[in-house]
Amino acid sequence: MLDHIRIVLISTSHPGNIGAAARAMKTMGLSQLYLVAPETDFPHPKAAEMSSGALDVLEGATVVSELGEAIQDCGLIIGTSARTRKIPWPLLSPRELNEKLKQAWMPASAGMTGGAIAIIFGREQSGLTNEELSCCHCHLQIPANPDYSSLNLAAAVQIIAYECRLASMNVDTHERSSWDHRLASADEMAHFFQHLEQVLIDIDFLKVTAPRKLMTRLRRFFLRAEPDVMEVNLLRGILTAMKRRISEN
Amino acid sequence: MLDHIRIVLISTSHPGNIGAAARAMKTMGLSQLYLVAPETDFPHPKAAEMSSGALDVLEGATVVSELGEAIQDCGLIIGTSARTRKIPWPLLSPRELNEKLKQAWMPASAGMTGGAIAIIFGREQSGLTNEELSCCHCHLQIPANPDYSSLNLAAAVQIIAYECRLASMNVDTHERSSWDHRLASADEMAHFFQHLEQVLIDIDFLKVTAPRKLMTRLRRFFLRAEPDVMEVNLLRGILTAMKRRISEN
Repeated sequence: MLDHIRIVLISTSHPGNIGAAARAMKTMGLSQLYLVAPETDFPHPKAAEMSSGALDVLEGATVVSELGEAIQDCGLIIGTSARTRKIPWPLLSPRELNEKLKQAWMPASAGMTGGAIAIIFGREQSGLTNEELSCCHCHLQIPANPDYSSLNLAAAVQIIAYECRLASMNVDTHERSSWDHRLASADEMAHFFQHLEQVLIDIDFLKVTAPRKLMTRLRRFFLRAEPDVMEVNLLRGILTAMKRRISEN
Repeated sequence: MLDHIRIVLISTSHPGNIGAAARAMKTMGLSQLYLVAPETDFPHPKAAEMSSGALDVLEGATVVSELGEAIQDCGLIIGTSARTRKIPWPLLSPRELNEKLKQAWMPASAGMTGGAIAIIFGREQSGLTNEELSCCHCHLQIPANPDYSSLNLAAAVQIIAYECRLASMNVDTHERSSWDHRLASADEMAHFFQHLEQVLIDIDFLKVTAPRKLMTRLRRFFLRAEPDVMEVNLLRGILTAMKRRISEN
């Protein structure tokens, strides 16, 4: 399971934090590190120093310029967030993440792999943007001291990696093996949302000049259900039929 | 409960590690720090720097020369250890520590206070001695990657402090109490599904003569997301807009 979990760090400023996060990952057996538009040179000697022997994780890191590239093939996308948002998203504690990982994990050997799982960490100062958070199926909040929630990046990665490791250790008992189709990937969901948005414009439900929070609410809704690939195809089939029916008239 | 848990660091060499441990403690609401014979000057500017705002924890730290002084009034003493010892001791995982803390915790108000609980962390390089470990009721082992168990002191404190915090909260889950609208009722869902079915017939997506499992799959999908009432209204709004658009043409 641990090989299928990727830690995605967005626009990290301090190379030492990347190194310390790599170390935290490796202590718990995680190895898949993605860096989205790091705001520091990478590779960097300070990152190597702080990784303290987890150089293999750093050297294997994938650097991309957009979040989409880091998550496009992921079936489950989880964003860490310290704040509660205006439009609340399904919220997990790290303990609930543990349960979720056990459920989401489908063995590749059964031909039902749901693809990778991404856990996204935001900028040191400002976390994730609303747009980044709206790409996620659910949000993850570490239950820190409300009077002092100053976990540094590596400390947050450490706690989450620890829960991932625990989940991996007794995974055999909880497989989503009874599900009939794999989860839709982020890429497939992105295409679905484009398709949905276009149809909503065509039927005058979405006013381009006054979109309000419509797409955000719809994203939250459809992501929360964690659609499988067959369900996404079915929903897109409805959109296509709708479009055709409009043209026919 | 958290005020009764003390973190005891033995012969720490690097002042920065003391500061980082204080920070990790404070993020999880722990405040009682004991330093046994630190092998560095203390207070130290590097400790203050690495504490990143947890100065109150550092300033409140108790420095003693012998382990005995740090634990004499403790009712439960737990030693962290990376290695398995020749003479095996009762061994806890951090998760089991969580359970143990809940059991051990007896409220002072009931006149049954069991005194403080000490969790002891050893030297950066060599951990705890056998003699120190033999002062403990039980040993605590973080289930790290066996090929790379290089947790630094603050990372180990972070994981243990996290489990202490969860034990104190005794509530590991986020309830959906912060949601912005109530869940849709069964009745509202029934009307939504009727509405959906009718539109699917209108756009020729659902063939009444060959319905297959379409509505079953859609029911499963939409129910799984547990829509709130605002989301159901939004989805019905989309169906109404579709219907109107068809009639217009």
